[in-house]
Amino acid sequence: MTSHTSTGRKLNFSAGPAVLPECVLEQAAVAVQDLDDTGMSVLEHSHRGAAIDRVFEEATADCRAVGAIPEEFEILFLQGGASMQFAMTPLNFLASGGVADYLDTGSWTSKAIDDARKIGEVHVAWSGREQAYRSIPNPQDICWSSDPSYGWYCTNNTIYGTTWETAPICKAPLIADMSSDIFSRPIDWDRHGMVIAGAQKNIGPAGVTLAILRRDLLDAANPDLPAMLRYAIHAEKGSRYNTPPVFAVYCAGLVFKWILSIGGLQAVESMNRRKSAVIYNAIDSSNGFYTGHADKACRSMMNIPFTTPSAELDTAFLNEAETESMCNLKGHRSVGGIRASIYNAFPEEGCQRLAEFMADFADRHGG
Amino acid sequence: MTSHTSTGRKLNFSAGPAVLPECVLEQAAVAVQDLDDTGMSVLEHSHRGAAIDRVFEEATADCRAVGAIPEEFEILFLQGGASMQFAMTPLNFLASGGVADYLDTGSWTSKAIDDARKIGEVHVAWSGREQAYRSIPNPQDICWSSDPSYGWYCTNNTIYGTTWETAPICKAPLIADMSSDIFSRPIDWDRHGMVIAGAQKNIGPAGVTLAILRRDLLDAANPDLPAMLRYAIHAEKGSRYNTPPVFAVYCAGLVFKWILSIGGLQAVESMNRRKSAVIYNAIDSSNGFYTGHADKACRSMMNIPFTTPSAELDTAFLNEAETESMCNLKGHRSVGGIRASIYNAFPEEGCQRLAEFMADFADRHGG
Repeated sequence: MTSHTSTGRKLNFSAGPAVLPECVLEQAAVAVQDLDDTGMSVLEHSHRGAAIDRVFEEATADCRAVGAIPEEFEILFLQGGASMQFAMTPLNFLASGGVADYLDTGSWTSKAIDDARKIGEVHVAWSGREQAYRSIPNPQDICWSSDPSYGWYCTNNTIYGTTWETAPICKAPLIADMSSDIFSRPIDWDRHGMVIAGAQKNIGPAGVTLAILRRDLLDAANPDLPAMLRYAIHAEKGSRYNTPPVFAVYCAGLVFKWILSIGGLQAVESMNRRKSAVIYNAIDSSNGFYTGHADKACRSMMNIPFTTPSAELDTAFLNEAETESMCNLKGHRSVGGIRASIYNAFPEEGCQRLAEFMADFADRHGG
Repeated sequence: MTSHTSTGRKLNFSAGPAVLPECVLEQAAVAVQDLDDTGMSVLEHSHRGAAIDRVFEEATADCRAVGAIPEEFEILFLQGGASMQFAMTPLNFLASGGVADYLDTGSWTSKAIDDARKIGEVHVAWSGREQAYRSIPNPQDICWSSDPSYGWYCTNNTIYGTTWETAPICKAPLIADMSSDIFSRPIDWDRHGMVIAGAQKNIGPAGVTLAILRRDLLDAANPDLPAMLRYAIHAEKGSRYNTPPVFAVYCAGLVFKWILSIGGLQAVESMNRRKSAVIYNAIDSSNGFYTGHADKACRSMMNIPFTTPSAELDTAFLNEAETESMCNLKGHRSVGGIRASIYNAFPEEGCQRLAEFMADFADRHGG
């Protein structure tokens, strides 16, 4: 077992910001010095100039191609992460009255609920809080209100390692926070009115946020907001109402091209199923040495939180893994233990390395 | 006259995003591949890890050193540009009632006024709109309201090329939009309650926004806002309430170190006075061939808009300059003509090159 990958890079299991494809990093480093032989860095170009026009046009077109995003959806590149969307969505779609329905499957949906309550009326249509957020609701257990302005859920719960196998069905526009699993598999656009996602897990570096929404929703949105808080302004101005985060959009565009180059979302989903199965198999074949946090029916392909038999062994596991150049495996404080985040760009070889290490560690520590 | 700088880089007169120091671009390009030999890109590191702790600690400390920012001011790295601040300041300081006073010296103050009016009552204490924003008010011409919640002004007006030689005196907390001239000269902190600035002119790449505010203002701010819109949350969480724009903060930190390395803001101001004087001299010694937009008493060191005797000659000027690798000199559509933006990182040699070109062009076209 070598202590490094073939290129000397560490195995980065970070929950986000997270590993990016090496070809993206190489191109980005070149562009920081000189974008496409223009004699200027991508950091220095005017966001109104031809070079950055091309960056935005390509990033938008490639995003649409990757996600098979229908033409009636607008693709916006915003700032502030998913957390800013926790404010913007109710400001745009709830401020004028009504009720918004939220499905509470973890910390991030809880924060979205807290923010929405500052703006208008919220109905929690399901909550997994009492069960330590180990599961995702069955459709019949969701208690939608009679006429919600929108429904909100989170497709993948980074901390708890749970995911929705299929999107819920909501008669109002359904908004999905896909920050931690966007473009890890195809998206069912028929069930969604809007998808939002911070970039820093599957799309690119931190600093840009995708908001993809049906154009008809823009007409119904609150017009009495400051400009930057209105989706309609960003749509009208092609995500360049003011100076956008050019470099982050440029990198996201490179990631979209990388996804297309490896076969698109069908290929990515197959890869992610293989990658996560390697680690889940290491848990399930450990004779109870390792315990996964999430119920088996809703296991995430992106984040795998698990524990050893004791907190002491968790710590030993993390320390030994670190010496093997497997980094950022510490679990979130609210769950503890170990968490392997294995987003799209995380190498398949790294999952095998971790699984081997898990088996070896369990052998040595009484598994 | 060579067509390139010594390193093959174009002379970038962009109003922003704008030229960055070459040493910053070189270090940033290395960090995009591997940050400080950590085996991970600066784009891949967790924002909660030790490497990014250090990035934020150094950027904050160096920012404080550069600006001689007193300890009672909090330094925040936010997102959304100055335009998001147009919303956040009234949401925090005006939503609970009161009147905010705005000094309208250009397009950006007008936008700030429009946004504030969505939140609360605004009093325009001076406006240069009728005079095509050529000037900055004399102190006795400002008509403050009796008890404003805050005063708002813009230190440097990018489009019109005007600047405040000294900050106005306001009995309420004074908020300065310094997006286009922050750290071009020392700041009089005694007169300010808050300074905000998008990074993409003097601080770094687009994607991060500085907000520097007196801590006592946080206590008076509206607590009933979604988290991301509250200054107090960002202050409490050290600008990392959620995932911050790590790379943009990293680059800003490199720029702060560059400013310190060349002698700090006194040296920078001297340099900027020399640089702008070269171009203003070219205008003033042209026997009326060139006309500056701004009144002489309030000329900006950062942005110099001017015209030739005709729109046709303006176009010829821009085309010829482009062939000499002097780029992005086109004036903003609301003023027309030519605009030379010469921020901190714009090379002194480039100002001389432009001045020589201006003299030559005027000679050839009847100046």
